Amino acid sequence: MRPELGPYVAAALWRRQMLEILRAWRMSDAHAQVTADVLGAADLMGIDSHGMALLPLYHQQIQDGGATATPIISVVHDRAAVALIDGDAGFGQVPGMMAVELAAERAEKFGIAAVAIRNSNHYGAAGVYVRRLAEQGLIGISTSSVWRAAIVPTGGLEPRLGTNPIAFAAPSARGKPFLLDMATSTAAIGKLKLAQRAETDIPEGWALTREGSPQRDPNLALLDTLLVPLGGHKGYGLAAMVEVLSSVLSGAALTPLRGKPGKRHDVGHFVLALDPAMMRGSRAEFEADLDRMTDALRQTPPANPARPVMVAGDPEYACEAERLSHGIPLPAKLAEQLRGIAEQANAAFLLKEERAST
Amino acid sequence: MRPELGPYVAAALWRRQMLEILRAWRMSDAHAQVTADVLGAADLMGIDSHGMALLPLYHQQIQDGGATATPIISVVHDRAAVALIDGDAGFGQVPGMMAVELAAERAEKFGIAAVAIRNSNHYGAAGVYVRRLAEQGLIGISTSSVWRAAIVPTGGLEPRLGTNPIAFAAPSARGKPFLLDMATSTAAIGKLKLAQRAETDIPEGWALTREGSPQRDPNLALLDTLLVPLGGHKGYGLAAMVEVLSSVLSGAALTPLRGKPGKRHDVGHFVLALDPAMMRGSRAEFEADLDRMTDALRQTPPANPARPVMVAGDPEYACEAERLSHGIPLPAKLAEQLRGIAEQANAAFLLKEERAST
Repeated sequence: MRPELGPYVAAALWRRQMLEILRAWRMSDAHAQVTADVLGAADLMGIDSHGMALLPLYHQQIQDGGATATPIISVVHDRAAVALIDGDAGFGQVPGMMAVELAAERAEKFGIAAVAIRNSNHYGAAGVYVRRLAEQGLIGISTSSVWRAAIVPTGGLEPRLGTNPIAFAAPSARGKPFLLDMATSTAAIGKLKLAQRAETDIPEGWALTREGSPQRDPNLALLDTLLVPLGGHKGYGLAAMVEVLSSVLSGAALTPLRGKPGKRHDVGHFVLALDPAMMRGSRAEFEADLDRMTDALRQTPPANPARPVMVAGDPEYACEAERLSHGIPLPAKLAEQLRGIAEQANAAFLLKEERAST
Repeated sequence: MRPELGPYVAAALWRRQMLEILRAWRMSDAHAQVTADVLGAADLMGIDSHGMALLPLYHQQIQDGGATATPIISVVHDRAAVALIDGDAGFGQVPGMMAVELAAERAEKFGIAAVAIRNSNHYGAAGVYVRRLAEQGLIGISTSSVWRAAIVPTGGLEPRLGTNPIAFAAPSARGKPFLLDMATSTAAIGKLKLAQRAETDIPEGWALTREGSPQRDPNLALLDTLLVPLGGHKGYGLAAMVEVLSSVLSGAALTPLRGKPGKRHDVGHFVLALDPAMMRGSRAEFEADLDRMTDALRQTPPANPARPVMVAGDPEYACEAERLSHGIPLPAKLAEQLRGIAEQANAAFLLKEERAST
């Protein structure tokens, strides 16, 4: 437990607070439930930047016309194993989960299916969508473009692609799904913020100065957001691949050509489901082999015996177990921001009496 | 032109030499044509480690029983948009191209399709398969496991995953496809060999010592093959994702559990095709937007005006144009190795009189 993070809030109350704000924005109850589910799932897994902490950004995007809380979402095309959804400038959680359901249904019929989404906005943590697919016995892949550019193409001086995440999940027989959820930048924005809070330099290879040299100051790195793609040119290639799947395929805005923020962001997402039972011929064999593989990876001799080797998803599931027991930490700054947007929207602010339970 | 690389061989003669050797191994003519096409495509694109230079390894794998030149390849399952191929311990090029054809046919029917391959061996450069798909107007994704472990899981001391490549291609309206082909290690084995030849240290972050510290000596790095995954834990996650798609999904050998080499390697591959025309509703719109995106990326202000920003595939296509005009450089060491295996197989050695044409 990290007491400096503030009080711990039970997951149910955390979710109620989100629902209060979302409904005050006139979001329909059905949409608010889905949105709160997706955001809350990220908070439980410790992806703090992609949970309730997004609501101040969402508030701002509604204010400046970039997003609406009352979209009319439509399926533009629906053809065998592929479909295209128009998000009507709403946030990405509702069309994202529609895509999960549609892709799952079609994957069970055809073996594989994919759904693209255009005219959307931030959809939270990509890992939440693929985890939902894996919990149904399917392999899930999801990618998203981002409403603003942050990654600098290798050899360039200006950002042209978002932190364009890739998420992948696969079902396990006896454990939680294998769950990878990563930005295609070397370091996530959240890591820059941690360094800023800790007042430490950031390593070379995370961000650039405007002249293209390594940026070591986290404050300037956050100001300029000139992020280095993961490991250099390969990460640049991956970020561009995500742009193709999320934006070019759906017809969403192309991040390298984005104008100034303020208009509809027209973010694109991509969701793919694959049924290992149909492909390999046996769901049980697939899942047993997945467990054999992840077990063998965890048994790699560790450099530090006190820190066993982990597999993608392990840290998030450990955090989730802890937060389900002890609550989700609420930093004072976030509490203040939430109080502010709740007041502006005439929503109840429920977190005020909450104090640490552990 | 780099005269130190030896003489330049015309692509047609290069291909004939491969066919001579493959047929001398009793590979059927149909299989030899496909295998030579895939290897030769890599050589033209400058992926020298994944072209004809693989034949000495393939020779050794046939000798030690790891692979056969005369497989009977079969389709194990064929269900709507997914299928599973058994490679019968042959090399991966023939089942790989079967997978490309099958996936393309089904993607045109269902919108998306995927084929997994088990019981295979090295399939050359993953990019060759996805490029073939993109040249038919499809998005292609391919991954492969590798016959030996080289990537060390983050925090570990021993290799548990291969250099597990990911390839992605997407069709362009007026140019060559966007083409990404990358190992999930920070540096490819080929880069270690370049440093070895140049007798320079390798950067921190490429390889580890047996104690888990940075390895700077390229000779030791090649000996131990303890490679750092791309950018750290994210690359480890990507390498494990590739293992799931290539091996767990197909039922191939799990690299973390591989025994000693010498037996059948049972490598797995994965090939996915997606029809942007069906998904977005217009092939022309997709391809025009792909060009707008790649143009905008290339127009990023460069750090060095003499080195414009590139897009994945640009260096390979430039190399291909040059080698189609001037021939493929044949290093003296490779020529000697090829002469040796040609002699052992009673194949004609055609490269002996070839001398530089430029």
